[in-house]
Amino acid sequence: MTRQELIEQIFTKRTFLCVGLDTDIKKIPKHLLDCDDPIFQFNKAIIDATADYCVAYKPNIAFYECDGVKGWISLEKTISYLKKYYPNHLIIADAKRGDIGNTSAMYARCFFEEMDVDALTVAPYMGEDSVTPFLSYEGKWVILLALTSNKGSHDFQLIADTEGKRLFEHVLEKSQAWGNADNMMYVVGATQGRMFEDIRKVAPDHFLLVPGIGAQGGSLEEVCRYGMTPDCGLIVNSSRAIIYANSEPDFYVTAGENACQVAEEMGKMLKTYSKTKDDLRF
Amino acid sequence: MTRQELIEQIFTKRTFLCVGLDTDIKKIPKHLLDCDDPIFQFNKAIIDATADYCVAYKPNIAFYECDGVKGWISLEKTISYLKKYYPNHLIIADAKRGDIGNTSAMYARCFFEEMDVDALTVAPYMGEDSVTPFLSYEGKWVILLALTSNKGSHDFQLIADTEGKRLFEHVLEKSQAWGNADNMMYVVGATQGRMFEDIRKVAPDHFLLVPGIGAQGGSLEEVCRYGMTPDCGLIVNSSRAIIYANSEPDFYVTAGENACQVAEEMGKMLKTYSKTKDDLRF
Repeated sequence: MTRQELIEQIFTKRTFLCVGLDTDIKKIPKHLLDCDDPIFQFNKAIIDATADYCVAYKPNIAFYECDGVKGWISLEKTISYLKKYYPNHLIIADAKRGDIGNTSAMYARCFFEEMDVDALTVAPYMGEDSVTPFLSYEGKWVILLALTSNKGSHDFQLIADTEGKRLFEHVLEKSQAWGNADNMMYVVGATQGRMFEDIRKVAPDHFLLVPGIGAQGGSLEEVCRYGMTPDCGLIVNSSRAIIYANSEPDFYVTAGENACQVAEEMGKMLKTYSKTKDDLRF
Repeated sequence: MTRQELIEQIFTKRTFLCVGLDTDIKKIPKHLLDCDDPIFQFNKAIIDATADYCVAYKPNIAFYECDGVKGWISLEKTISYLKKYYPNHLIIADAKRGDIGNTSAMYARCFFEEMDVDALTVAPYMGEDSVTPFLSYEGKWVILLALTSNKGSHDFQLIADTEGKRLFEHVLEKSQAWGNADNMMYVVGATQGRMFEDIRKVAPDHFLLVPGIGAQGGSLEEVCRYGMTPDCGLIVNSSRAIIYANSEPDFYVTAGENACQVAEEMGKMLKTYSKTKDDLRF
């Protein structure tokens, strides 16, 4: 999916929501456990109920890998289902991979050839040759960790060099020599509030994938006030607050309602913060 | 496997070699492609031929994941084989995982419960809560990236703060509050030469997992001169130079010979650099 196609989806549907498929067998409604593949059945119901209110889905690979071969099958089925029935949704594999060049190339083959997802989250610690193998696939996206949503983000990402430049700013700057706003996004946690201003100084145009609203406590309004661009420039993820809002057989109805509610807020945010003087999109 | 058991294996066998199972269907001998599971058959032959000369095996997860479900099955079979026939070898899953707490906990469940490997490589970028879930498993090891073997290691790992402390030194220092030398090792590339002296200033006792000899060009002698401790403190990995030395049907014979040769050098290194005044191990 190209940047232009993504922007069109966002302004047509008036939402920049990504639904996180962090599907845990221990948390899904009990009645699904009798199915042949409970994880896939859960995902399918969540996807059908939320597709109108989001532009992206983000399977969190850890939640599938933890069931070994079985989990990997559920993941493949979920991705096939998305590609078949919702081809206009961006599929992000949240895997946080990154290794020496020849190994990153294998991960790229896994996610961009075998699974054929649109985007992959990548960890930057190992530098350029750990990231560039993912950038050689046309139409695919690298989503590089910059300033994450968790408490541990303060441990290393904020370390500043002698000129006051912090690690996440180094990542934003250096990586712009490897990719561009058409094939690279950054992960910035919703919990980082005004830090979005600093992010936008270094990466004014790039899309940001923003986890951390909902269960992690980040504010959508703050993210938009400080992080939104005329092209929106944001994909905001919610996982637990949408997919686990209800554990009864009608769980998907509640998931749909919650996604709809977030999308409505997002529509307002787009109107407030992305509108330019002569914008015909509103 | 405990630290003491690992040290005993090293000094009994006079080797600290880890054989990297970076098994690529495109690189294994052609005659294996007729087998039911060529990747597993290759691994099995390599393991049987090299087990006497190494103390650890390190499947590189990317190389299995890239074949999806099929690759995952080959990986599970390889690990089961190792656990059954070579229970005294450390099994390291080289996966470089790391995510927010609840997700790292799922990766931990994957590798330490489902697969039940001994050790996992972990990326430190996301800080404390991305690492600690892996440390709650008794008898298991976290191997945290510190100073990696690739060119890109210079991009971020060497960034220094106002006091001259570099990112990899921050990682070494901070992480010692999360784990200890009994449940944590660090990845330091063999290509880093004298930097091992700096590493040992901050982490004098921890075992280091050292990739980068062989195909990547690092020097075993240098690693040992600057990085070895009285307990050895090193696990040195070789992948391509051992497993792909020969692509004929007798590939495993060459792999065994190459592993034997590296182990012989390692025996000498142990005698030279780990020996203490009243050491009875030699």
